[in-house]
Amino acid sequence: MRSASFFPLLLVGGALFPAPVGGARTAPADPLPSWNDTAPKKALTAFVAKVTKDGSPDFVPPAERVAVFDNDGTLWCEQPIYVQFAFAIDRVKALADKHPEWKDQQPFKAVLEGDHKALAASGEKGLAAILIATHTGMSIEEFEATVTDWLATARHPKYERPYTECVYQPMLEVLAYLRANGFKTFIVSGGTADFMRPWAEKVYGVPPEQVVGTTFKTKYAAKDGKSTVVIEPHIDLIDDHAGKPVGIARAIGRRPLMAFGNSDGDFEMLEYTTTAKGPRFGLLVHHTDTEREFAYDRKSPIGKLDRGLDEASNRGWVVASIKDDWKTVFSTKK
Amino acid sequence: MRSASFFPLLLVGGALFPAPVGGARTAPADPLPSWNDTAPKKALTAFVAKVTKDGSPDFVPPAERVAVFDNDGTLWCEQPIYVQFAFAIDRVKALADKHPEWKDQQPFKAVLEGDHKALAASGEKGLAAILIATHTGMSIEEFEATVTDWLATARHPKYERPYTECVYQPMLEVLAYLRANGFKTFIVSGGTADFMRPWAEKVYGVPPEQVVGTTFKTKYAAKDGKSTVVIEPHIDLIDDHAGKPVGIARAIGRRPLMAFGNSDGDFEMLEYTTTAKGPRFGLLVHHTDTEREFAYDRKSPIGKLDRGLDEASNRGWVVASIKDDWKTVFSTKK
Repeated sequence: MRSASFFPLLLVGGALFPAPVGGARTAPADPLPSWNDTAPKKALTAFVAKVTKDGSPDFVPPAERVAVFDNDGTLWCEQPIYVQFAFAIDRVKALADKHPEWKDQQPFKAVLEGDHKALAASGEKGLAAILIATHTGMSIEEFEATVTDWLATARHPKYERPYTECVYQPMLEVLAYLRANGFKTFIVSGGTADFMRPWAEKVYGVPPEQVVGTTFKTKYAAKDGKSTVVIEPHIDLIDDHAGKPVGIARAIGRRPLMAFGNSDGDFEMLEYTTTAKGPRFGLLVHHTDTEREFAYDRKSPIGKLDRGLDEASNRGWVVASIKDDWKTVFSTKK
Repeated sequence: MRSASFFPLLLVGGALFPAPVGGARTAPADPLPSWNDTAPKKALTAFVAKVTKDGSPDFVPPAERVAVFDNDGTLWCEQPIYVQFAFAIDRVKALADKHPEWKDQQPFKAVLEGDHKALAASGEKGLAAILIATHTGMSIEEFEATVTDWLATARHPKYERPYTECVYQPMLEVLAYLRANGFKTFIVSGGTADFMRPWAEKVYGVPPEQVVGTTFKTKYAAKDGKSTVVIEPHIDLIDDHAGKPVGIARAIGRRPLMAFGNSDGDFEMLEYTTTAKGPRFGLLVHHTDTEREFAYDRKSPIGKLDRGLDEASNRGWVVASIKDDWKTVFSTKK
């Protein structure tokens, strides 16, 4: 969009495609080349075709084409631990010098000693304490800088590459495909918005204002011709389970047309989407690939998918198996 | 966007304009015809020109072109009382049959009896009670339907036309002008998001996901294959004064490039915008026109503008006087 040169465009079904070069129109390239030609891909493309076809009884105007995506386990890898938790652990280690008391204080002691058992025993209360110690008490700009710095050097323990390269190529294609068809794509994640905003635009093409996530309370601070917003040590909204429709209602203000998730934490988001009037679409990514990724569902502490598997069929949700339905998994070869 | 026909477009400075018809390019029409050619218009167009000019040292990529607008007194008329308060009063009257206790209970008694003195005496606590009684305890969809129904018949007491026609033509032009130059336009209002979302897209061209406002806490509810989000009787965020930067950080996640307001309730939003690095722009609408609108500032209980007038010059904020700088005030002739 920065060029001032002429750029002929062709409007097709509400979407912008570059005009074909050389005169004759050629068949458009497959927008989802990393998907096998199995049922999930067929259901997805058939849905998009019917809601974007002018004159179709299911036509939906571009302004109402909202698609929401969970992040962990849907757009990028959440195993063996949530990326944001890996970040928090590294931050505890980096901040330990300033907090000598952590040596004797749980859950920090467990993190510093790599004591997984004691860490697990600290439960949700321990997790909240770690989050608050590492994610609050600073300006949003300061926090975002720590995220950016960390991502530049941190590596996924299994794939040994940056976490931002542990994103799913098939889902990047879905994001681009929907945007090319006039959709606005949003992330609606249990992770915090502050953690995703510094890189979501570059990695997913999703700008900060379309990133919805867990939030802390914040406070405005201005002094000497400068101003900022400071993150306070209090949870504002946990954007998971029933918190996802709440986050969607607050940030987006209308029902999504399509929702993509992978765990029971996304159940209510898919339910809120697909129980609305008119055509709706829900898809669950099912982690089934021990070889190329991880296989987990009903009994996993991370990304548990149990009720979703039970009810998907009755609710008309598509279940995409990584093993069977994805030709490629990651955006960069392992 | 619904047509499948060819539509040649010309990209200019990141904005989409239809290609000129008939061969020769003609000078573009004035995008702000309702503004006099006085200093505010000149400052506004000079700023937009420099941040959108490719190669300029002040060039800002389209993704970062965020402009925020207060609503009451900036985009539409807030006198003699806030439109949302007029709505709340009418809702109290409409609901009175279901609440016989209101006859003897303040502040409802004052509303039902038109007792302005008693109403004013009930203060902020009274106002909160009225808001909670009329804006919560129902689904978002139910609330939005009451707003839409009310706007269809309610009339402004002075102009005797729908409130949605008491919007400022010069500001509609600014919204369209910025969007044509690659900006995303957001409303950031002390009014509630739920109150603005049903009509902001039609009236201002601002979609629900770009409406930031005061919010109530909400709760997800699903039953028998239906689902909704219910508005609860607790304030979540008051999006006014220091709450505006908080709302911007939460919903938009980046600093605006331009901010438009009219009262001291917008002071922190303009400060947060214009104290950020790089080129920034702040504008205050000054209500100075007794004949065509209302004249009020330092002593007005509604839309008080005092500190803003004192500090605008030192902070480099533009003050636009309705009397002197606006050729036309309302979008429809009085």
